Amino acid sequence: MRFATLPDGSPDGRLHLVSRDNTRCSPARAVASLRLLMEDWDAVAPALEAEQAALNMGGGMPFDAAAACAPLPRAWQWLDGSAYDSHGALMQKVFGLDPNPKGRPLMYQGLSDRFLGGAADVPLPSEADGIDFEGEFGVIADSVPMGSPAGEAAARIRLVVQINDWSLRVVAPVEMKTGFGWVQAKPACSVAPVALTPDELGAAWRDNRVDLPLRVTLNGRPFGHAEGREMAYSFAELLAHAAQSRDLVAGTVLGSGTVSNADWDEVGSSCLAERRAIEMLETGAPVTPWMRFGDRVRMEATARDGAPLFGAIDQKVVKGGRA
Amino acid sequence: MRFATLPDGSPDGRLHLVSRDNTRCSPARAVASLRLLMEDWDAVAPALEAEQAALNMGGGMPFDAAAACAPLPRAWQWLDGSAYDSHGALMQKVFGLDPNPKGRPLMYQGLSDRFLGGAADVPLPSEADGIDFEGEFGVIADSVPMGSPAGEAAARIRLVVQINDWSLRVVAPVEMKTGFGWVQAKPACSVAPVALTPDELGAAWRDNRVDLPLRVTLNGRPFGHAEGREMAYSFAELLAHAAQSRDLVAGTVLGSGTVSNADWDEVGSSCLAERRAIEMLETGAPVTPWMRFGDRVRMEATARDGAPLFGAIDQKVVKGGRA
Repeated sequence: MRFATLPDGSPDGRLHLVSRDNTRCSPARAVASLRLLMEDWDAVAPALEAEQAALNMGGGMPFDAAAACAPLPRAWQWLDGSAYDSHGALMQKVFGLDPNPKGRPLMYQGLSDRFLGGAADVPLPSEADGIDFEGEFGVIADSVPMGSPAGEAAARIRLVVQINDWSLRVVAPVEMKTGFGWVQAKPACSVAPVALTPDELGAAWRDNRVDLPLRVTLNGRPFGHAEGREMAYSFAELLAHAAQSRDLVAGTVLGSGTVSNADWDEVGSSCLAERRAIEMLETGAPVTPWMRFGDRVRMEATARDGAPLFGAIDQKVVKGGRA
Repeated sequence: MRFATLPDGSPDGRLHLVSRDNTRCSPARAVASLRLLMEDWDAVAPALEAEQAALNMGGGMPFDAAAACAPLPRAWQWLDGSAYDSHGALMQKVFGLDPNPKGRPLMYQGLSDRFLGGAADVPLPSEADGIDFEGEFGVIADSVPMGSPAGEAAARIRLVVQINDWSLRVVAPVEMKTGFGWVQAKPACSVAPVALTPDELGAAWRDNRVDLPLRVTLNGRPFGHAEGREMAYSFAELLAHAAQSRDLVAGTVLGSGTVSNADWDEVGSSCLAERRAIEMLETGAPVTPWMRFGDRVRMEATARDGAPLFGAIDQKVVKGGRA
């Protein structure tokens, strides 16, 4: 199934099914919002499967991806991993961090009350904060009981999404130094318009990872196309890590961390911090600036044959907050 | 106004008004749940004021605090400060942490999808994780726009609550070392049964702080009675810090961090880690053990004349998750 949420004036928005080619959609009849679907998946999903099958045959209305909210405009929980070793290694070298603990995924708890739509402007308070994007994949899971092993957590993955985890890089190390993690450095994330059940990815859903390149452009210029498969921990392992001392609530959104590959000289990067780290290693100093108001980042993972999947995140950073 | 939530089978529970002496309650007529009230405070609160006034005159049914859920059983956001300098100083000495950054409150983003009721058993996976309580005060705020100064944030404080921020002290330093903050070390918090509008505290709501002692007992023995007023940052300042790069969602719960006083030798502590830190400083080694399954912690802040306010958190730790 393919889901999108269109605005209807409510905080959760109105759930729609999207045709397999992402060109048409129809309001879900069985449930009003993706939040409510996530809280009652087993009871509601079968009716939606039938609605999806009918829509794939024809009918519905044109799907305007640029008008869509995030598929889940607010969630009870957002946990973000950092599961790509090449990203971690670059960040450690440049910021002088300790190596990642062996056998323990890195993960933080982030702001979940708002996810921006993939075409929405991104209001941030200051260019001086070091505005950066982070291209990621993510999953939306059903409830996972405390102590569940990865094998059981895998069976609770309901949807796959594509995320931009906005980051403020000047604030981030100040907050990291406290050990408390990020508050100011991690404003609301953005999510591409279409959330997919894993079967929609076909063979590209492999070992509980997304085996597809994430194509990133910055102000229209190619920036990276790293492959999703190089996660050191699968989404199932990340869920099990998160569920060690808590029951995960139905509708938990869990991210992969910045998609990154060991051959970054070939594929480029999915965030500015990583490119700046490479520049520091190669030339002694970063060259690429952080984002300025008016800058635009686009990221999209399509199928290998170019068929649309999540749709695109394509956003402009703008001045937010007080003057 | 005084609010409690009683279970009704729904995730948000059923909102009740509680009489000024915490002995009687009646279901709120104007709104079903505290979550929905927080999302529409200005429109709904006047009708509830009238309901509260009527209940204070008489009527309603007996209020069984031990049957109550947390006032807000799930929230869109939980941010916890660490605003007591004496707590921070002890933790730094014992764990070898860097001093808190000057002029910047410490704060982490925590699990908000579930708050346990004040009498609920607390399921945790292992005694080996170093089970500890943290007695705190907190506020529940209306929406706060990005960039709001503390003076404006103060006007958005709607409710005051009393919190136990459960912590796993063996896991905590491992997660702090990564800079990503806590996931496994911070399971669901507990909240005392009654949430109060600040006016219910009278003069004890002072400078956007709770000027009352938090009385803590462990397995029935006095453990601490630190005063709430020694916060280095007020709740308004903490809200402004949190809103620097994000709009705070209506219903944000914000905590003070462990209540702690500079004269800890007089007043005791509100968490085991602090007592163990004092023992390490005084004798070279901690003596007080972490909590075991079956141990019970009780915390309550009453008015100075003993009149009930938040009711008590009185909980037993039990084995949770897989065997």
